[in-house]
Amino acid sequence: MKVHTKTISISSTGNLDAHDITNQAANLIQISSHTNGTITLFTPSSTSGITTIEFEDGCLKDIKRLFDELANSDRYYAHNERWHDGNGHAHVCAALLGPSITIPFLDKHMTLGIWQQIVFIDFDNKPRQREIIAQIIGD
Amino acid sequence: MKVHTKTISISSTGNLDAHDITNQAANLIQISSHTNGTITLFTPSSTSGITTIEFEDGCLKDIKRLFDELANSDRYYAHNERWHDGNGHAHVCAALLGPSITIPFLDKHMTLGIWQQIVFIDFDNKPRQREIIAQIIGD
Amino acid sequence: MKVHTKTISISSTGNLDAHDITNQAANLIQISSHTNGTITLFTPSSTSGITTIEFEDGCLKDIKRLFDELANSDRYYAHNERWHDGNGHAHVCAALLGPSITIPFLDKHMTLGIWQQIVFIDFDNKPRQREIIAQIIGD
Repeated sequence: MKVHTKTISISSTGNLDAHDITNQAANLIQISSHTNGTITLFTPSSTSGITTIEFEDGCLKDIKRLFDELANSDRYYAHNERWHDGNGHAHVCAALLGPSITIPFLDKHMTLGIWQQIVFIDFDNKPRQREIIAQIIGD
Repeated sequence: MKVHTKTISISSTGNLDAHDITNQAANLIQISSHTNGTITLFTPSSTSGITTIEFEDGCLKDIKRLFDELANSDRYYAHNERWHDGNGHAHVCAALLGPSITIPFLDKHMTLGIWQQIVFIDFDNKPRQREIIAQIIGD
Repeated sequence: MKVHTKTISISSTGNLDAHDITNQAANLIQISSHTNGTITLFTPSSTSGITTIEFEDGCLKDIKRLFDELANSDRYYAHNERWHDGNGHAHVCAALLGPSITIPFLDKHMTLGIWQQIVFIDFDNKPRQREIIAQIIGD
């Protein structure tokens, strides 16, 4: 049993920019010395989140609409009033979605469904470089 | 430290069908060789999710109402327009709830609260057989 | 590789009371014998949840508004009709947010962002003592 930790880099435009990070996660498992275990993907940020989705344009539009309805950027946010950075909605969405996901893998393959991809969503209101932590634990 | 992975099978009717999988998870820990560690339950699907809830009819009705309000199946979904399978709402709910949960166990017992059960919710719009991945890591 | 499990105690007032448990989690890693791995924080309760957020008054007000809008305590809940404890909204919010979070750590430090803290939110409608399970797995 051992622990390996790597970083996945993403150039994000923000504003609900969504990135499929399934292949990067799969590659990290392939080049690791692990056969079975879990991979935890964690975004070290309070304005982005990680989940799984069928990564196709329709689903991406639909999930963006959901977050726009839950926490529209045009509304009042106490965070914005205090800090004037205009990303209060991003904090709310990120906290609700959650910063991490843990996925089992077997014989070096994640147990994802055929139509299930790992998606990183950047709720913040400006472009930035994002570094996602990928940690593999297993044998 | 070792890794054990098993599958929990569920016959689901879809349409927000909810299943209590606490006993199946507890049994897998009992028959494993582990004493302490975590069990990760993961649904390999983009139209179902896993969380914990007090598994009684009232709470189940209330959580179904929440998802109906968040993503009603009668609304427009870009996913449906593209793929014509009518489960766009299911993808949105599943991505928001998340496909997995990780629960610590001690002396072979999960650290769940008394009124807390593990629930699998199938958001899809048709019956199907579901296979949930249960992975135990610990010593 | 080894497993260590501890408890974090919180005196909660309920009603969306939010607690920053980052320092307690960090201290448990410091005093453990682990260098790298994951810490899983799990609330053994069906009326509270755990996520990450920028823990400042503005964000806390904004996330409380979101949950008030998603599941206002003044609405009808089937759970309340059956059990008369008035916390149906708390069950819904807790199931949606989720009871746990898993965070990687490296060289004894969690990989949190600078503005990212671990938050425990108590959705229930009365004060109580809460015990959060903290389990560390790694080497």
